[in-house]
Amino acid sequence: MSDSVKAFAPATVANAVSGFDVLGFALREPGDTVICKLMSEPGIRIAPLTGAYSSLPVDPKLNTAGVAVQSLLDAHHLETGIDMEIIKGVPMVGGMGSSASSGVAAVVAVNALLGLDQALIDLLPHVLESERSATGVPHADNAAPSLLGGFTLVRSVDPIDIVPLATPDNLICVLVHPHMHIKTKDAREILPKNVPLTKATEQMGHIAGFVSGLYSSDLNLISRAMVDVLAEPHRGALIPGYDAVRDAARAGGALGCGISGSGPSMFALCSSEEVAKGVGEKMQKAFSSANLSSDLFVSEISQQGAHVQD
Amino acid sequence: MSDSVKAFAPATVANAVSGFDVLGFALREPGDTVICKLMSEPGIRIAPLTGAYSSLPVDPKLNTAGVAVQSLLDAHHLETGIDMEIIKGVPMVGGMGSSASSGVAAVVAVNALLGLDQALIDLLPHVLESERSATGVPHADNAAPSLLGGFTLVRSVDPIDIVPLATPDNLICVLVHPHMHIKTKDAREILPKNVPLTKATEQMGHIAGFVSGLYSSDLNLISRAMVDVLAEPHRGALIPGYDAVRDAARAGGALGCGISGSGPSMFALCSSEEVAKGVGEKMQKAFSSANLSSDLFVSEISQQGAHVQD
Repeated sequence: MSDSVKAFAPATVANAVSGFDVLGFALREPGDTVICKLMSEPGIRIAPLTGAYSSLPVDPKLNTAGVAVQSLLDAHHLETGIDMEIIKGVPMVGGMGSSASSGVAAVVAVNALLGLDQALIDLLPHVLESERSATGVPHADNAAPSLLGGFTLVRSVDPIDIVPLATPDNLICVLVHPHMHIKTKDAREILPKNVPLTKATEQMGHIAGFVSGLYSSDLNLISRAMVDVLAEPHRGALIPGYDAVRDAARAGGALGCGISGSGPSMFALCSSEEVAKGVGEKMQKAFSSANLSSDLFVSEISQQGAHVQD
Repeated sequence: MSDSVKAFAPATVANAVSGFDVLGFALREPGDTVICKLMSEPGIRIAPLTGAYSSLPVDPKLNTAGVAVQSLLDAHHLETGIDMEIIKGVPMVGGMGSSASSGVAAVVAVNALLGLDQALIDLLPHVLESERSATGVPHADNAAPSLLGGFTLVRSVDPIDIVPLATPDNLICVLVHPHMHIKTKDAREILPKNVPLTKATEQMGHIAGFVSGLYSSDLNLISRAMVDVLAEPHRGALIPGYDAVRDAARAGGALGCGISGSGPSMFALCSSEEVAKGVGEKMQKAFSSANLSSDLFVSEISQQGAHVQD
């Protein structure tokens, strides 16, 4: 046990076009950093946030990092006092898994700080607890990749069954975050309750092809399989310039492009950093034409998930 | 070019529980054998069928082998006369891909007989033509694995995109064919036109998990992912003893069990031949309790698909 532990948890892209509600992957950056220290009195204290996005509440009951750590402490019947500093690198409400990243970094830091020696996957329930507090549902498609890195599959929600998938080398993600908000609730409500069985089987072909492409590092197959006939045809309407951004990415040489999480961020997968930079410019330009300024992130897909930093 | 070519095409299991309408795999046996000879006059002649199941029509327009070969000849603008002998090893109307096996064996034989030098995958359209003639729709989930062997994915139907998947070693299939008939049409019509989006995403998790399990040879994951929430909850009602057969297979140590194709055959995947034999007995016993006698097949999943035999 040391007096202070710093942990990093990456931003993530959920859904990833082919895998609505079940697939996600981790970036190398940006991410959230959480520094935890032991405190003499019990309870969780969160310092005012720093970093690029710092307007989150410091009440531990209203902050996903606080909720996740409280869940972890409760599970171990601990009343240890924890002092947390959160350096927020992941844009909030952007479809980049922001709430999950803070929760993940926090439990990874506390796990090390208290010498609990839990495997990363065993920390997941505590992050899901915080996801439930943030969004009403314990979605794992951001939390799991932020924790484990690479591509992960949520094979089953109840019981929870997370499958780490293969991640080809040198796959680069372009992420463009337009300056607007979409409420996760609105992104949910725009979806139909029922879908034609033929669409369901069509999408099964796409996700199975995508997973096969990951294992065989077949970028052409990955590209062919980056199709979503279930969610994006509806959710695209919530993002000004959606079609233009997607077309621009494909025209620029991206393997595929779509909505990150429930949006409004959009991402593209590219086979090299060079292609990725050009694709990012084109996507930003397309958002500009829809009167949206944006932030651009270009990052490898990280095989490493959350980890303690020196 | 030789005067006579004999080709074998294996029986197949479509849907394979996790992958309704998109997944299939090939057995090592049983299969259909087709012997083709050059004939001096143009046209296709089919001799009265032999083998275990021999009641198929010999009119080449009404026989899937005849339709497939005619399509192949037409594509090459050939009027060569072909004499065909079909040794039928795959039960008909049993959910074992019987129509596809004959078509596949026939085009593989003629491809070699005429020295057309087509890759196996390029023969698929001709088999699909014959599948269309037999069932009204050009399904590829039997034709593709019979042609290519192992597990195959139909990622997309239009345009057709077949993805050969990894196949773990030593995976044994138990196939039990009860003595009854289900019309493919009835098996289609019992399915709902629409399904809840939540069921669609749940099934996406299962097929993605199954494919991941194939690549990582993770039998435990394969077992967890052998779930179908889309088709089998409806189609099970068409097969007397369905629940009992499935429960018996699982209780006997099978990784999973479900309907082969559109039934009534049911299959189970097992990790060894020893387990498979016990599972087969239990499945047959469960069918007996539902007053159905049955045939039992136990076979490796073949990495090799259709091929010319000496």
